[in-house]
Formats: sequence, structure tokens, C-alpha cells
Amino acid sequence: MRTFRTKVRVLYADTDMMGIVYHANYLRWFESARTELLRSIGIIYANLEMRGYYLPVTESYCHYHSPALYDEVLAVEAYISRVRRASMRINYRITREQSDTIITEGFTVHAFTERNGTIVRIPDDILEIILQNNEEERHGGQKKR
Amino acid sequence: MRTFRTKVRVLYADTDMMGIVYHANYLRWFESARTELLRSIGIIYANLEMRGYYLPVTESYCHYHSPALYDEVLAVEAYISRVRRASMRINYRITREQSDTIITEGFTVHAFTERNGTIVRIPDDILEIILQNNEEERHGGQKKR
Amino acid sequence: MRTFRTKVRVLYADTDMMGIVYHANYLRWFESARTELLRSIGIIYANLEMRGYYLPVTESYCHYHSPALYDEVLAVEAYISRVRRASMRINYRITREQSDTIITEGFTVHAFTERNGTIVRIPDDILEIILQNNEEERHGGQKKR
Amino acid sequence: MRTFRTKVRVLYADTDMMGIVYHANYLRWFESARTELLRSIGIIYANLEMRGYYLPVTESYCHYHSPALYDEVLAVEAYISRVRRASMRINYRITREQSDTIITEGFTVHAFTERNGTIVRIPDDILEIILQNNEEERHGGQKKR
Repeated sequence: MRTFRTKVRVLYADTDMMGIVYHANYLRWFESARTELLRSIGIIYANLEMRGYYLPVTESYCHYHSPALYDEVLAVEAYISRVRRASMRINYRITREQSDTIITEGFTVHAFTERNGTIVRIPDDILEIILQNNEEERHGGQKKR
Repeated sequence: MRTFRTKVRVLYADTDMMGIVYHANYLRWFESARTELLRSIGIIYANLEMRGYYLPVTESYCHYHSPALYDEVLAVEAYISRVRRASMRINYRITREQSDTIITEGFTVHAFTERNGTIVRIPDDILEIILQNNEEERHGGQKKR
Repeated sequence: MRTFRTKVRVLYADTDMMGIVYHANYLRWFESARTELLRSIGIIYANLEMRGYYLPVTESYCHYHSPALYDEVLAVEAYISRVRRASMRINYRITREQSDTIITEGFTVHAFTERNGTIVRIPDDILEIILQNNEEERHGGQKKR
Repeated sequence: MRTFRTKVRVLYADTDMMGIVYHANYLRWFESARTELLRSIGIIYANLEMRGYYLPVTESYCHYHSPALYDEVLAVEAYISRVRRASMRINYRITREQSDTIITEGFTVHAFTERNGTIVRIPDDILEIILQNNEEERHGGQKKR
């Protein structure tokens, strides 16, 4: 699956008194990378909501390998790691941009729901975009060998 | 006007790498004290929204006198300091609970609006509660002298 | 193991445009419950840091069962679910206070480290408090049967 | 004074249940613009701290003109609006990027302190950079007329 990569700079707002990024704040960067990943393949989440579809987070997991420090530039990578009938999982990897040190790895699982929370199947056009992207990536990978 | 007082304990989540509470986080405690102040005089903000009234913040101000530290217990005081036809201002004072050291003082101004943002007059029953409370407090204050 | 229970009220600050608590914000309440759980058995985290010990989060996991809404009162439960030589895991369960509906379940894993991040064994007095508490709870549990 | 302009995209994390950016979250973007403004004239805040200087926020003010919505791209402008012996004030203006609608205006005041909080005069080299920048801007402005 296509991996999307974005950059963030650590703000004072992100740090805690240990002098490192507070663990919950990585989930914000996961969100940012997730939204841009979807945008990069043509899925604008705001438009999904306008069509009545929502993607609430049903699970989140983070493994904190190494602390990120104030003013560091981090690379945040995201890719869709699993697609089911009514949910998908996105994986993330945050590294220190200059050294590739792994800072955090994790995932979020998202249900497809209607406004009222009812779980629904992923709409066909969205599913097609996701699967097609996955396919292309696989073919792209084969060509390289 | 009646002053409402609530307590909060500083979490790691509230601190930054200077080892003190990050300045923006005081606004969260202002919100908590504001909601409880209103509840204490019989105005439940969630019910206001169900009736179609909203109180978006139009101004906020904070003066940071002294830093608050991790795990300290703070007292947060709030009182309605001004009422207009379609807005009100609430003032706040955060002190270290044990020593009464002033940590932060500030205010927020709130417009009364409908869901779509149109500014409306404060509904009569709400205005009455606010003014009556103000009055009682003044009389109470006079009696004490 | 002893379960500690605390209450929180959902603020506007905690919600997102879906009208529910933003998923990352539960980790803040996990922290609050964790700190009070430790305090309840005699371990004041701020004092641990003064002695040179730190408990950075190395893993976090949340399963979001049901959304929490604005102004709801939530019960946050925490208990130590695993103790190793140099780490411990704490589990959490957040329920709607009035109905016991499960909102969120999850855990955090914490390493014991020095200021510079070096992993160290849990100091004996701390380990003793944790194990003793665990033991008492087990005996208490057996008696009940 | 030179105005620095940066862009941000509104995340779900920034919104509240009113469907707009929660008022306290603008201060985070003020911080981001302030740091980049200083970096653009050669002052890296992280380096100031390494030299023992800190710039805690002593006052903050926001006027919320118009709500910012999810997924909108905002322009955040910052400029140094006042310099004193031991403090400086920075002003901010956030607009909707596409339409120039003003979203928020505000300022923060910062003291120059040592690690322990003692207020100190702005170091000469830093003051020189700030004043020189101010001067250049003024001359640049005159030339344009």
C-alpha cells in the first residue's frame, strides 16, 4: 500500500515536563498523516462526512520507542494496512527526520458509520479507490524487482 | 456576583518542557469553572444548546502571574463580571490552593447566538437568573457590613 | 489488584466536531486515574521524580466502545495489571457513571528509568508496596468466596 | 516590523462539538508562528534556552472574529509589536487562506528570564537582531512610498 509521508515540527505545546513529547500528542500527528494519506489518493474526509459517512476511531495503539524533543522535525508516515467490509486500519511510523531514528509506531482502526453511529459497509467508490491503490502499489513493487 | 470555586490538580498532560503549565491549558480550567459556575445558579449549558442557544467565546485574556507546577492543586474561581443584551463576560482567578499565591487571572467574553452563529438577546429566563443572582449577592454583601 | 475509581466531567475542550470526545483525550483521563491510583497506595509520582525515577509511557492502547458526550460524568477505573523488573502495565476502564455503559478500555505500559532514560529496576520499596497491595487484594478476594 | 506568515490545516483534534476550532487551540498556532517568525530573523528559540534564556508567556489575548472550520487552511501571521528592556509583545492574525476573512487576532507578551524565572534584560545580540529587523522593515516601507 502507498505510504504517505508528512513532516511536523515539535512545539512547546507538544512537550511535557520530562522535556519530551507527551505520549497522547502523537495521536494528533497520526490524524494529520491519515487525513493527508487519504487526500493523496483522492479521498477527502470532509467530503465523506458531507455524504453522511463517518470514520470514528475504534482502536488506537502506540509503541513509544524513543522520545521526540522540542523543535525537532519529525517525519510521519501512514499507510492503510487492512481493509474490511466496514472498517480499515491505518499504520503509522514517526521518525526523526535527520537520522531515521524510530520515535513511535502505531495504528488506528476506523469503523465506517452513518451520522448516528450505525456501522455501514464502505461505499463502493471509496473501496475501489483504496483497493486500486493497493493493487498499483503491489504491481509497482513487482516491476522494481 | 456569586463567585464559584472549583479545584483541579495539574497533570503531566498540562505541563510543558519548562516544567510548568503550558499557557493555553489554563483556558481549559476556565471552561470547567465557567460551566460549574453556571450550573451552580441553575443554568446547565448543555440544556441551553438543546434549546438552540450557544455561547461561543469571542474574547479571551490571561495574565500569567506565577507558574503552576506538576501535581499542585489549584483553586479556580469564576464570576460573571458583566452582562449585556447579547453577551456576558466571566472573570477567573487561579490560585495555588495551599498558599493563595495568584497563578493566573483572566476573562472570557461570550456572545449569545443561535446554532448558525446569529447573535441573539439573552433569553429572559436566563437573564433573570443571572441578574437575580447578582442582586442577591449584592444584598448579601451589604448585610455583612 | 486494587482498582482505583475517579470521576471526570466531559468538557467542550474534550469534544470534537463529531460531538463526542476526541479519541486522544481519553489518555489524559488515563493519566489522571493512574496518578490517583498510585497515590492511593502511597506512591506519589512527583516524589518518585524527586528521587530520580521516571515512568515514561512505552505503549498505549485504547478500545473505544461507545462515544462519550459533552457534560457527561464518566467513571475512570485503573489497576496495575502486570509488574515486571523494570516496567509495569496499568489497565483502564471508562464507563458512563449513571448507566455503567463501557466507553473505553485500554492500557499503558511504563518503563522505570533514570532522568537520562536509562532503564532501571523498580526500587525495592516501590515494588514492595505494589506487590503487597496485590497480595492483600488477592487475599481479600479469596475471603469473599 | 517584518511579518511572518505560515499555514496550518484545521484537524479534527482542533475542533469542538460546535463544529469549529476550540478557542484555546489558536494559542498553539500562535506559538508555531512565533517560533517561525523568530527563526526567520535568525533567533532559534531552542538555542536561547541552551544559553540559559527563557521566554515564558506573561499575557495572552485573543479576539475571535469568525469561526474556523475543519479541514480549512488558515494563514497565521505574526510580528513583534513591542520591545522593552526585558519583554516583548508579539501580535498575530489568523485568516482563512482563500478568502482573507479574519478568523482571530491576538497577542502574547513574553518576559525574558533565566531558568529559575528571574527576569533579565534581553541579551544585546538578540536585541540588536530584533531592532535591526524593525529598522530594515521601516526603511523598506519608506522606499515603497
